[in-house]
Amino acid sequence: MASQHEPTGLIATSGLELLTAGTPNGWKITALLEELKAHYGTSSTTSTGSTGSTGFPQVTYQPIDIMQNTQKQPWFTALNPNGRIPVLVDHARGGFAVFEGSAILAYLARHYDPDHVFSFPADTDDFSVAEQWIAWQHGGLGPMQGQANHFFRFAKEKIPYPIQRYVGESERLYGILDARLRDRDYVAGPGRGKYSIADIAMLGWANIALLSGVNLDALFPNVVAWLDRCLARPATKAGFAIPAVSSFSNDALRAKIRDDPEEKRKADESTKLLEDAKAQYNYKYTSP
Amino acid sequence: MASQHEPTGLIATSGLELLTAGTPNGWKITALLEELKAHYGTSSTTSTGSTGSTGFPQVTYQPIDIMQNTQKQPWFTALNPNGRIPVLVDHARGGFAVFEGSAILAYLARHYDPDHVFSFPADTDDFSVAEQWIAWQHGGLGPMQGQANHFFRFAKEKIPYPIQRYVGESERLYGILDARLRDRDYVAGPGRGKYSIADIAMLGWANIALLSGVNLDALFPNVVAWLDRCLARPATKAGFAIPAVSSFSNDALRAKIRDDPEEKRKADESTKLLEDAKAQYNYKYTSP
Repeated sequence: MASQHEPTGLIATSGLELLTAGTPNGWKITALLEELKAHYGTSSTTSTGSTGSTGFPQVTYQPIDIMQNTQKQPWFTALNPNGRIPVLVDHARGGFAVFEGSAILAYLARHYDPDHVFSFPADTDDFSVAEQWIAWQHGGLGPMQGQANHFFRFAKEKIPYPIQRYVGESERLYGILDARLRDRDYVAGPGRGKYSIADIAMLGWANIALLSGVNLDALFPNVVAWLDRCLARPATKAGFAIPAVSSFSNDALRAKIRDDPEEKRKADESTKLLEDAKAQYNYKYTSP
Repeated sequence: MASQHEPTGLIATSGLELLTAGTPNGWKITALLEELKAHYGTSSTTSTGSTGSTGFPQVTYQPIDIMQNTQKQPWFTALNPNGRIPVLVDHARGGFAVFEGSAILAYLARHYDPDHVFSFPADTDDFSVAEQWIAWQHGGLGPMQGQANHFFRFAKEKIPYPIQRYVGESERLYGILDARLRDRDYVAGPGRGKYSIADIAMLGWANIALLSGVNLDALFPNVVAWLDRCLARPATKAGFAIPAVSSFSNDALRAKIRDDPEEKRKADESTKLLEDAKAQYNYKYTSP
């Protein structure tokens, strides 16, 4: 059984240690860490917590099987009382633990992105703009698409009202993002924008939109182009493969539906369920 | 009709302007602004955006009636594409607009709390701790209690599964907060803590817990004591009365139930509905 391999505590003593899983909330941190490693380089000896052109601290990933509730174990909740991944532990700063994805992104930007390659200086308007969009993801897109996921995909009871409510709200939110990306390549930054933690915060959810009942291809061309643009980055792509390439991504799901008649049948059934729920509540997506 | 009095654009030309409503997301900003005004004093002439012992910029509040969808008007979505209150506009910094509650709290702390009276210096661990708990509220307590509110209180269809799901998740989250406050007076800061934006972010939701089906008195004594402690502050209390004292607060709801037999009958009916939903899914609150 996998349980015997589950983590039972921290294993690193220096550098950065991340407790994570292959979910949108995990990927945002693995993607940023891989980008920071690629840019600043990895030093296997640093344990000072400072970074710069001389190297980036060693990063230790510990995959957590959330289906086994490892994140509810006392050693884990001592690091994050909320019992959720991801959790970052900074051994170079006394084992300081950071929970909540948006707070981890901000922490890494402050302490480990001194050249502001993936972030913005704190006294600039761009800093606040990035912070606003990250908050928009953290309080809106993430939680609401999470509920769409639950009611559309995973809940035993298939209940039309919450299915329509959350898929509809997710569509509304992707509409906002699509409009934002109409004349930009990236969410924040001057001109057409700069690839930053504002993009990294959102990519993971867009990457599993189909799982949640949202068809990006049909409605949100700017989001699709942006997602492709960002996931084409080698370091970001590497982050999305930690701890393993997801079988829930839009690409993986489309491949399954194409190749497996049983998956096709199930997908058609889900689509019908969603269409019926939308019809029942007279819902039709309209752009913002 | 109220509609003729609804805002149709910004009205201030200097200082800070807040588009808000009497909801938990609005109160967190009005409470912080009132605290900042009380501490730093109000200067009616400053329009430099800087603050300090010499005064605090003038604050203009514009109440938005969210039932009339004023927040969906083009002038509003030009400031916040997401079409939600609160929105802060900083006329002293070129009319820069800030949306999302947690981003507004962070913005005000950065630019208008130079002595870190309600916040923490950015290079301290306390800064990150506050940021983590604010993110916990912004991505967890707020959205999930919001859904409890919807399904338990406002949705036309009373559906047991989502009622249990969201009231249960809200209870789990208040259990986390209650444990956090077991040996502290405030959410963040050294020792027993310091009243800060981490508390201010959460107070509003706790203030309407009963509306959402969560009985703080029965389960979360530390949360109740903390809520009373914070709301006893004159400036915070003043913030919670902008634009008007809420008829949805725990106190207001309890008074209605006590004084009005019809309100009592409706409350008993809601309680029964919630108890039945919990029983149907074998849910019982257990502390973390």
